[in-house]
Amino acid sequence: MQVEFWFDFASTYSYPAAMRVERLAREAGVTLSWRPFLLGPIFGAQGWNDSPFNIYPAKGANMWRDLERICDAEGLTLTRPPVSFPQNGLHAARIALVGAGESWGPEFVCSVYRANFAEQKDISDPAVLAAILTAQGLDAADVMMRATTPENKERLKTQTADGIARGLYGAPSFFVGDELFWGNDRLEAALQWAQRQVSAEAVPVRR
Amino acid sequence: MQVEFWFDFASTYSYPAAMRVERLAREAGVTLSWRPFLLGPIFGAQGWNDSPFNIYPAKGANMWRDLERICDAEGLTLTRPPVSFPQNGLHAARIALVGAGESWGPEFVCSVYRANFAEQKDISDPAVLAAILTAQGLDAADVMMRATTPENKERLKTQTADGIARGLYGAPSFFVGDELFWGNDRLEAALQWAQRQVSAEAVPVRR
Repeated sequence: MQVEFWFDFASTYSYPAAMRVERLAREAGVTLSWRPFLLGPIFGAQGWNDSPFNIYPAKGANMWRDLERICDAEGLTLTRPPVSFPQNGLHAARIALVGAGESWGPEFVCSVYRANFAEQKDISDPAVLAAILTAQGLDAADVMMRATTPENKERLKTQTADGIARGLYGAPSFFVGDELFWGNDRLEAALQWAQRQVSAEAVPVRR
Repeated sequence: MQVEFWFDFASTYSYPAAMRVERLAREAGVTLSWRPFLLGPIFGAQGWNDSPFNIYPAKGANMWRDLERICDAEGLTLTRPPVSFPQNGLHAARIALVGAGESWGPEFVCSVYRANFAEQKDISDPAVLAAILTAQGLDAADVMMRATTPENKERLKTQTADGIARGLYGAPSFFVGDELFWGNDRLEAALQWAQRQVSAEAVPVRR
């Protein structure tokens, strides 16, 4: 049984989720599938043209404080993104989609989250993304070309639409089959759910 | 150091929070203060005239499923409220405010949550609330009279306004001094925060 990790690079709580999901999935013995998607169309359909954390200031203020407490507990650096929040993660998501089927994908995702939330870098800047890919020993130009083909752009839209059709509405989210878990604080529950499915399958039927 | 438990009777996640907050606070050795308030004015100020779980259907659908999983894990019965969601908890909140300073308060709060989310009762019905008070051995008519005085009605508005001024924006919420924690899933963190404050105070200053 696998857990699908659905993330958007502008999503604040996706940062601690991305930084711990691989370790926790491995410890739980659960296969992990990385699923970048775009919150923009989902928020847009709800009438939001900005992050709800900006639209609702009290909620936003407490989100940053809460995230600070969570990152403290996880030993993660947290700085507010530069320029503006949320950052535009479209280009990074297209690259992450290419990486989702390749071995360098997870490390790329974590590096982009660190760039956004720990290193105050502009993740919409292709040079920032290229530097991350190069540091991973990849041919940045080649990866970025594959990320920006019409097919890959369309694939990201389709993946987002598929998620929405299955009930996706926020990030991070975790699917275990049809079972949807929303939020960094539901990661453990999602992994336990996956483990229980495996155990249920493994039990021989007695008659 | 005390933890303030802020709750609204229409709030779904306040149900499991109310049912476990007293036990967990006792185990943590933390004093608990029960603070009923009204989400209505907060949501209204954000332009919502209904629960966000109704306004955003995908979010609402997953909330009910998530709450089901949480209640399963806690051994709590969960049924959707009758008639409509959310129920009007104004009258119950006024009574809970009277009870917040008296020994019967916590049990009344838990009974109203059970009536709403486990017993399919109409918690806006004075007869339902009176029956709860009577079952607690109280003079229901007397309590309800005290709940509906102009002073008590005003006190509930003032308490809500005070919460908003301190950053309150949702339910359940927990304050430890100025530190705000939002959500049933932050109860443990709030209690740990309160414990750490006590420990910090208890440490003698060394120079």
